[in-house]
Parts: sequence; C-alpha cells; structure tokens
Amino acid sequence: MYDVAIIGSGLAGISAALTLQLHRKNILWLGHQNLSEKIRKAEKIANYPGLSMISGSDFCETLKNQVQQAGLSITQENVTGVYDGGSHWMLATAASVYEAKSVILTTGVESAKSVEGEEHFLGHGVSYCATCDGFLYKGKTIAVVCTTKDLEHEVEYLATIADKIWLLALYKNPEVKASNVELILDVPQKIDGSKTVEALSCKRNHLPCSGIFILKNAISPAVLVSGLAMDGQHIAVKRDMSTNLRGIYAAGDVTGRPYQYAKAAGEGNVAAHSVIAYLNHLE
Amino acid sequence: MYDVAIIGSGLAGISAALTLQLHRKNILWLGHQNLSEKIRKAEKIANYPGLSMISGSDFCETLKNQVQQAGLSITQENVTGVYDGGSHWMLATAASVYEAKSVILTTGVESAKSVEGEEHFLGHGVSYCATCDGFLYKGKTIAVVCTTKDLEHEVEYLATIADKIWLLALYKNPEVKASNVELILDVPQKIDGSKTVEALSCKRNHLPCSGIFILKNAISPAVLVSGLAMDGQHIAVKRDMSTNLRGIYAAGDVTGRPYQYAKAAGEGNVAAHSVIAYLNHLE
Repeated sequence: MYDVAIIGSGLAGISAALTLQLHRKNILWLGHQNLSEKIRKAEKIANYPGLSMISGSDFCETLKNQVQQAGLSITQENVTGVYDGGSHWMLATAASVYEAKSVILTTGVESAKSVEGEEHFLGHGVSYCATCDGFLYKGKTIAVVCTTKDLEHEVEYLATIADKIWLLALYKNPEVKASNVELILDVPQKIDGSKTVEALSCKRNHLPCSGIFILKNAISPAVLVSGLAMDGQHIAVKRDMSTNLRGIYAAGDVTGRPYQYAKAAGEGNVAAHSVIAYLNHLE
Repeated sequence: MYDVAIIGSGLAGISAALTLQLHRKNILWLGHQNLSEKIRKAEKIANYPGLSMISGSDFCETLKNQVQQAGLSITQENVTGVYDGGSHWMLATAASVYEAKSVILTTGVESAKSVEGEEHFLGHGVSYCATCDGFLYKGKTIAVVCTTKDLEHEVEYLATIADKIWLLALYKNPEVKASNVELILDVPQKIDGSKTVEALSCKRNHLPCSGIFILKNAISPAVLVSGLAMDGQHIAVKRDMSTNLRGIYAAGDVTGRPYQYAKAAGEGNVAAHSVIAYLNHLE
C-alpha cells in the first residue's frame, strides 16, 4: 500500500513528488521517464522565478537531474481508472492494479479533451487500454483514436486481434505497420450507439464499429475517477487542492488557468502538504 | 497612475513582477533591493522545482539577476497604508503617495504578528512611520518597537525629537546611538489607553508613553488595508488570489500555509494573471 500515488510528471507532479519525498512518504509516481513533452518543447520560459529565460529542453534536463538526485523513480504506465477501495484508492494500469492511501492528479490540460459519448460508453464499447480489453474484439471492426505516436504499438497489438481497424491518428506522420489498419484523415466527434458502441462519427466520415479504443497518455479526470466534481473542463479544487473525494487531490493545469509552470509547481507543493496532513490524520 | 502596485519582494512578489513585466504593465514594485532576507538566510532549499539543493544566498542572487535582466526595478520604501481612491488605490509611504489601479499584497508572514490594540490605536498614538508622525511627539516620552536592525535609523531620528524613548528591539544586538533611548529587554503585549495611547504593557514592564512607533518592514495586512477580509492571521483569498476588495490581490505566505517558495511563486503568478484580466476589464 503506497502512501500516495501521483499521476502525471509535469511540473505539478514533480513539485508534489519532491516535497513528499522530503517527507519520506512511500510514493507511487506514474508518469513518463522524460517527464513532460510540454516542458521539453517550450521555446523559452521567461517568468519562472529562479530560472531566467531557460529553454524548455534545458528546464526538462534540470528537472530530470533533480528528480534523480532526490532518489525518485517514475513508473511509466498509463492509469486507466482510479477506483474507490473503501479506505484507500485502487489505480488500474494495463500492467497492474496499485493501491494507495491518497492520490494526486496532475494529468495536465490535454486530458480535458474528450469525444462526445466517451464517458457514457466507457465499458460498453469504449476502452482506454488495448492490453485490458483488446481480446473482446477478436475478428471484429474497431476504431482506434490514437493521440500520440508513442502509443502506436498498442494499435499494432490491436491489429493482431481485430479484423479491421479505422485509425484516427491525432499527430503528424503516423507509421503503424499493419495491413488491416486503415488511416482515416478526419476528426472524431461523437460516439453513436444504443446500448453499446455502433459507430464513430467524424467530421467527414461515419465509421461503423463494435468498439472504440481511445489511446492517450492522460484520460479526462472525470472519466478517470468516477464521481469527481468538475468545474467546466477542470477539476474543482479548494485552496488546499482537495477535490470533492476524500484522499484525492489535484494540481497543475488540470485545475484550471493560468496554464503556467510556476502555478503548477505551487499547486503541486500545496497538494503534497495537504496529503501529508491527510496521512497524519489517517494514522 | 500605475497599472499595478506590488508590495513585497519575496518569491510571490518576484513571480508577480516577472509575469506583469512580460505583459508590459506599468508596475510600481515596493520592496527591498536585496529582495528577501528570508530567502537569503535559507540554508538549503530542497524542493523548489528547477533548482536542486540550492542555498538561500545563491537563490537570492539568481533571483536578483533575473529581476535585473527582466528590466524590473524596486522602490525601497515601506508602505504605511493603502487607501481607497474610488476608482483606484493610493499607497502611502514616508516619502510619497502613489496611485495604482490594482494592488498585489505579498508582504509575507512576519507581518501577521501585531501587538494587541495596534489597529485600534492607529492614528491615535500608534504610528508606523517616524518621518510622517515623529513631529507630533516633540519633548514627549514614546515607546518604539523596532522589529529589524535596518530600521534603527528611524529610532535615531525619533530620538532627535522625543524627550525619552523606550526601545523594544525585537532582534539581536541592537546598536541605536542616542543617550535618551533606553533599551528594554521585554516583549510588547498590549497597548493601553482610553482615547489615545497611555502606555505599552510588556511581559515584565509597564511603560507609560504618549505615542508608540511600531517600525517594521511589513505591516499586518488588515491594518495596511482597511476592510480587508482575513482568515485568521492570513488574508482571505479565492483561487484566483482576489481578496474581498475590488482590485486588491494577495499572494505568498500572507495568504496562509504552507509557507513554501513554490507555493509563493505559483500564487504570485496567478495573482498577476488575475490583475491582467482585471485591467483588461477596466479598459
């Protein structure tokens, strides 16, 4: 049982992890070894106190070194769901189910985008996890919305099971190698069906299918954690970064604007301190 | 008329100033050339993202360079009061009165301490400003609570006016050079009087006097800005760092725990963005 699970490795997650490590908490940190593509790709950061006009790639390297020096390690798995375990929370990934007393969601703002009907049909034809649910679609036609190149291996895995795949790749130069995968240059808009998925409606195409895989590094928080109160597209938080769910905190872009590194770092720090107080209270 | 006045030059003030400068706002930044004694004296900072195990003095130098490179300048004057000017705010210092459309209070947490009766007797025997009010006490006995060595020159100035000064120095090795100043090793607790100040009660001494100067680099926010809503010792703020007063924002330790650099930097950034939105709305 972990004291805390941090989901996301942007500045909010980094800040939370550094502070919780300093307080010797038992941390499960789910994110990316390279921390954050958003940081790495930033041209220049002008207003982060302490680092004058640093490039995103230098900032990212600096942060990676700091994370290593702090003795932190990152588990590179995508969380597909966070479930209430009564006295704790369970985090499902394709590889495992983890248990933690508390959770900090720092999944960023990309996660806010979702396809209409995604939440409604989740578990009824919509899946985030090829490894978990791929076997259900043996010999069938499915649509796969792949949001990032580093998940193309999941599309290729699905191609070994399904008969036919409509692939909507939301990035440049997709390179999936499988003959039964048809690349559709379109924008997914709505999931159609009655009880289960029947089609994916796009701007220009209507794609009949019995299942839809939405492959992304971060899932919309309301979908990830059932019952989580939202404020529009963002997680509703109090000043201490607590959400409406006991033991669940959020920090960074996922809680709203401004989408700024200093804000994310500050909120990660506050969330960490709130988790420390929460854990003390549990004991 | 300034777009914004930032009071305080700790991490919250620095963060707000960097962001507002980037947005080309006309800034009055009231603080210290050396930014923050609290930062400078920190031994090691372990959990500020981007600067691994930096010493306080190195951090402070880095920040000073960043502030200079950003083209920001600091006006080294203590604000003694912030007054409602109707459509704007007026900031009084010993030297001048400034006008600004909005204000960000980043006065830190030391400012939270105050002597019982301080607010009640303000303007009725209690003063924060030797230059402003010293002349009122010609030939009289006054008490001076001096909280920091760098304000000893104000005590010496008062000694040229008053007949007798009880000095309560709340720091080590006071060195005021004046024969009519008596150093009292005690802790101020309460201001006594009916209409005006009659005495300063300390833990072990009762000091009769007709005026009390409380010299500090930061004044309790509720005293500084009349009508400001507090949450205990801290300024009550919303998630966007707005206070109950239109155009007045707060950030950093003054808004509450955790007293952490990352939190202060984050809140300064958020306050700056809220000010930008506020100024756009005014236009």
